Amino acid sequence: MTAYFDWAATAPPDPEALNLQRKVSEDTWQNPSSAHQWGRSARAELDRARSRSAGALGVSPESLIFTSGGTEADHIPMLSLLLRPAPHSIAVSAVEHPAVTEQAKVLSRLGWKVASIPVDSSGRVSAEGVLSSLSEDTVFVAVMAVNNETGAIQPVEEIASALIRHSRGKRKIHFHVDAVQGIGKIPLNLSAEGIDSASLSAHKLGGPRGIGLLYLNRPLEGVLRGGGQESGLRPGTENVAAAAACALALERTVERMNAGDEADGRGLSRGLFANLCAVRGIAPIPRDRKEGDCRFSPFIMQFTNDRFPGEVLVRALSDRGIAVSTGSACSSKKKNRPVLEAMKISSRESQNAFRVSTGYGTTRDETEALVAALSEIMGAT
Amino acid sequence: MTAYFDWAATAPPDPEALNLQRKVSEDTWQNPSSAHQWGRSARAELDRARSRSAGALGVSPESLIFTSGGTEADHIPMLSLLLRPAPHSIAVSAVEHPAVTEQAKVLSRLGWKVASIPVDSSGRVSAEGVLSSLSEDTVFVAVMAVNNETGAIQPVEEIASALIRHSRGKRKIHFHVDAVQGIGKIPLNLSAEGIDSASLSAHKLGGPRGIGLLYLNRPLEGVLRGGGQESGLRPGTENVAAAAACALALERTVERMNAGDEADGRGLSRGLFANLCAVRGIAPIPRDRKEGDCRFSPFIMQFTNDRFPGEVLVRALSDRGIAVSTGSACSSKKKNRPVLEAMKISSRESQNAFRVSTGYGTTRDETEALVAALSEIMGAT
Repeated sequence: MTAYFDWAATAPPDPEALNLQRKVSEDTWQNPSSAHQWGRSARAELDRARSRSAGALGVSPESLIFTSGGTEADHIPMLSLLLRPAPHSIAVSAVEHPAVTEQAKVLSRLGWKVASIPVDSSGRVSAEGVLSSLSEDTVFVAVMAVNNETGAIQPVEEIASALIRHSRGKRKIHFHVDAVQGIGKIPLNLSAEGIDSASLSAHKLGGPRGIGLLYLNRPLEGVLRGGGQESGLRPGTENVAAAAACALALERTVERMNAGDEADGRGLSRGLFANLCAVRGIAPIPRDRKEGDCRFSPFIMQFTNDRFPGEVLVRALSDRGIAVSTGSACSSKKKNRPVLEAMKISSRESQNAFRVSTGYGTTRDETEALVAALSEIMGAT
Repeated sequence: MTAYFDWAATAPPDPEALNLQRKVSEDTWQNPSSAHQWGRSARAELDRARSRSAGALGVSPESLIFTSGGTEADHIPMLSLLLRPAPHSIAVSAVEHPAVTEQAKVLSRLGWKVASIPVDSSGRVSAEGVLSSLSEDTVFVAVMAVNNETGAIQPVEEIASALIRHSRGKRKIHFHVDAVQGIGKIPLNLSAEGIDSASLSAHKLGGPRGIGLLYLNRPLEGVLRGGGQESGLRPGTENVAAAAACALALERTVERMNAGDEADGRGLSRGLFANLCAVRGIAPIPRDRKEGDCRFSPFIMQFTNDRFPGEVLVRALSDRGIAVSTGSACSSKKKNRPVLEAMKISSRESQNAFRVSTGYGTTRDETEALVAALSEIMGAT
């Protein structure tokens, strides 16, 4: 059998989403910007996808922009900063996804000051930490909803409120939330006051690759220009089929989340966490994470072990038909682990770290296979 | 019956490409950046897609970057200019796609000087016109292979040679070719000396939406950052299924092109051009375009008429089951027609203009239906 524990890298595609993508690709393949009746049908299909996504997220259809994925949805608000008359300051958490931290480095090269918002030893950002990272001229703050390596849930609504209080009578600060690992996994109120933008990626939810959403609470002037599609913010012929599939995957994921522990594998994931912590030589990162710890998404767990480098463990499990990862797939080529560094995890623990991520489709057979394989590998002499 | 003459906006999807996209989405859905065996299989599938695309284009696999589409493939070299220590000058033809002209406006706002390379009354750029648009500090030139509204074939290899001669002993000028309407339609040698980058879009070739290719003759430093995918130039989880389908569509299109007139509908399109010119009140744009005119792609034709605004004609034909367009789908919302303006077409001719674009799947029944419907509409009293 194959057991898949790399849902944070990408989720197994939902066959219904693939079916819809195929159907729309065949039936409504015309360009939504074409004025003829088939173009107008494609436009209607795209509008339907936007409305359904908006319904699932509890926001207005006008606030959603289809993008090519989560990374681009993070980039659009960040790049729009370049249209300001002069560089200012931004603050991004020390544990953001590379789509944000690496893009912030480009802004830094273009004259912007970039502050790194500190995290505590559990990898969590606090509203106080955000406020202490602000300068007089900070115009943008990014804190993700759920960390992609540790599962740490960030208090984004609290941060949003703190930023509103802080900015009263002063320059408005744009608050961006990378919600890629949060949407459909933890309750998230994107329309909470003070959240200015948020990103999500369909393929993390069982939808197709190459499509994501940017939520925007008000119009923005974008840097990427072309045919004016997606309110002028995301040019290029609209990917109608993928948008429809994204909407379906999003709806189904949110439904499962709302149906609770049994339906969404949350309970199974909590049990897995406890069973993995019980394997000899395995410890969670952070050390103080407990079973059912409400500071963390149950679907993403980081561990370390006292015997093998993370990549050796990944390979040993892979050889046994089990997929786990070291850190983020998006930084798998790099040796350093900025998220764990920010948490002041020792370099040895960091080197031996690995991530187990689950989803709605995770089965008991799979979790048992992982615990058994890991026990065997860790127990081998 | 339905007759489709909007291939330049998007091509009907090739069922084999959709089949492959579906198969890869089901079988090889894992993240190519994951280190486990399934991630490595996904990586191998992506590498295969790159090699096949490279084979079809006659370039090396290392020179190809998968993007989210043609627009993004145009943006990557343009945005990379922002990493230069100071703004310089660029020159883009007056008839480029909005992905280039609108992006140039953003560069202009960021301090860059943007020269517009003139076209003659046929909408064609000349090497002399390019050279005369250069300043001392021009670092980037963009001229498309085939115009998306008129079908004008630009002498890109000649321009490439002229730029090499011009730059000898001076600052190198990056020459970018938007090849979206050229690839698979006219013979194009992307690896010709002096072409530094080129863009293509899969959905114009029967491939899926949301995937394109950027050809680069040497490494470039990109502005869009994240997980380091695609040589650090196009971050975001790789769309393996779409890349595989893109490669297949590209191979099949190039094969058909190489098989010649009968297989690729070229002859049929030439006949259609002549028959449309013969309809009372219809004239080609430019006026001096002839049947089989080698200055134009046979697959894209622009006409005007002496009775109806373009959008009225589009609607009248749409009501009869026939899809044509006014200008580019990507600028359908705008009333102005910069391409026709650059050709100094009168505002009345421009207002009454419409585009007929064909492809390999165009049938004789379709061309006959269009000529009959247009004759009827133009002849009605």
